[in-house]
Amino acid sequence: MMCTKCRRRKAVYLRSYSGEVLCRFCFKRSIEMKVKDTISKHKLLSRNDSILIAVSGGKDSLTLLKTLWRIESRIPSITLAALTIDEGSTEEYRVEGLKLSRKICEDLKIPHYVVSFKEYIGYTLKELWSKTQEKKLELLPCSYCGVLRRRIMNTFAKDHGFTKIATGHNLDDEVQTFIMNIMRGDYSKLFRFGASMETIPGFIPRIKPLRYVPEMEIAFYAFLEGFKLYEAECPYVRLSMRDEIRFMLNEFERKYPGVKFSIMSVMDKLNKQFSNLNKTYFKSCISCGEPTSRDKCRVCEIMDLIKT
Amino acid sequence: MMCTKCRRRKAVYLRSYSGEVLCRFCFKRSIEMKVKDTISKHKLLSRNDSILIAVSGGKDSLTLLKTLWRIESRIPSITLAALTIDEGSTEEYRVEGLKLSRKICEDLKIPHYVVSFKEYIGYTLKELWSKTQEKKLELLPCSYCGVLRRRIMNTFAKDHGFTKIATGHNLDDEVQTFIMNIMRGDYSKLFRFGASMETIPGFIPRIKPLRYVPEMEIAFYAFLEGFKLYEAECPYVRLSMRDEIRFMLNEFERKYPGVKFSIMSVMDKLNKQFSNLNKTYFKSCISCGEPTSRDKCRVCEIMDLIKT
Repeated sequence: MMCTKCRRRKAVYLRSYSGEVLCRFCFKRSIEMKVKDTISKHKLLSRNDSILIAVSGGKDSLTLLKTLWRIESRIPSITLAALTIDEGSTEEYRVEGLKLSRKICEDLKIPHYVVSFKEYIGYTLKELWSKTQEKKLELLPCSYCGVLRRRIMNTFAKDHGFTKIATGHNLDDEVQTFIMNIMRGDYSKLFRFGASMETIPGFIPRIKPLRYVPEMEIAFYAFLEGFKLYEAECPYVRLSMRDEIRFMLNEFERKYPGVKFSIMSVMDKLNKQFSNLNKTYFKSCISCGEPTSRDKCRVCEIMDLIKT
Repeated sequence: MMCTKCRRRKAVYLRSYSGEVLCRFCFKRSIEMKVKDTISKHKLLSRNDSILIAVSGGKDSLTLLKTLWRIESRIPSITLAALTIDEGSTEEYRVEGLKLSRKICEDLKIPHYVVSFKEYIGYTLKELWSKTQEKKLELLPCSYCGVLRRRIMNTFAKDHGFTKIATGHNLDDEVQTFIMNIMRGDYSKLFRFGASMETIPGFIPRIKPLRYVPEMEIAFYAFLEGFKLYEAECPYVRLSMRDEIRFMLNEFERKYPGVKFSIMSVMDKLNKQFSNLNKTYFKSCISCGEPTSRDKCRVCEIMDLIKT
């Protein structure tokens, strides 16, 4: 079967939601164009932006790195750097991720920074986990790992003069989070989403250039790029509500191709209608002064729990 | 195990989302109180309201009939009547539904009207179905049955001076529709929901007093009331997206009790925030003059398709 786009090369990918079958070349190009369109449509980049890319070494962050690198190569005023956060885990999947990130940044000549939980928070993730268990706190690692990573990224970006933080969130991540917030009745969080976050004093704006790319297409892009995909998962992942929503959405997508994009269109319209509400949700943490939607930020709350 | 409410009678129902176990008496009372609370919180009724209850003879409509009758018996200025729409089906489930509706209305001394598709539309549902098949139209009966029923209800209520139409939509119906609209990307429909519909010229306001009662509790209430529940389903029901959403939500509810109420809380907040947008969605049909969200209403569209 021939590619429905170029009509010259052998098709390797069936895109169910559009009915296209694409060759390697047209498939890769379609992903890069999607990222470019997302950036221009949502005005994610400005001239002279200095972008810090959050890179774990997984398929999403490596695809982000590669597509942004391609786009940046045509806009010399924009600079890129990568940041890997080392939670201090000696698990194979993290060590592998770190190695892969380093290698690909070297290949692309993108400066690569590595910072650790230990130096920023004072504890590795494992040490935090032990502390919470000692104190019999009902805190799963996932509940604070993300919070702490985002804080470290923001602080690092501020300290080093970056103007944007780019993360590898894909269509599936975003849609899963939206449905999860609805199922949890977490109304205020429904409007905190978008390809970019509003400018809030103290926050380096976060952008999500892969927001409209399905997870499966990122996996295939990464495969075509020859990124080594390691199988091991975060050792703290467990059967969570998110996993069940992921499974459920994949089932619906299989039967009704395009469901994830339909959900995303609802998210975007809600965001547009509510964009001016976003700003009112942020204030300064009474303890550390960092921007937060609460009185005391989650980071201070977590550290209080662990220290007291 | 004893009822956690009265602590006197044997419990017969476990309400997972609250942890209560209830006896027959307290369970039935809790449903009636929920309906009463819904009516007063959402101001569904006014003094001197003349309510037309849509009754198919299924568990939802009979429960609605019984609970409204109990409430009405304390407010003599409110009057009740029931309307059954006869699609002209000779299927057992419809004949049974009609018989049951008639019997329970007689028992409760509520006037019972029966009107047919034939007299209002000119065709039975079966005849419409044959017409669409002759013309090779891709219209499933479900796509017009609901539209036509709502039109007949509205016309009947207007012609007979009713001030409200009450329907038996339950928590599950409402939440399923919301998730379905999200999955279909049908943004504008997200805000057309509520325990009551806004007053729109030409529309008799529709109220949904069972909107906060889970389907399973209605089934149990109907069982305790001794309503004969017939098993047969509408012959046109097929594996639809709604059925899959129903199944999926029941799975989530089983694992995470309260999920449906959480989704409902999001719907209510969205409605509240958007309530003033609702009105702009309605205009007059260019063909029949009835209120509609389109240029030509669905009823005229369907009849055009069938006649031409």
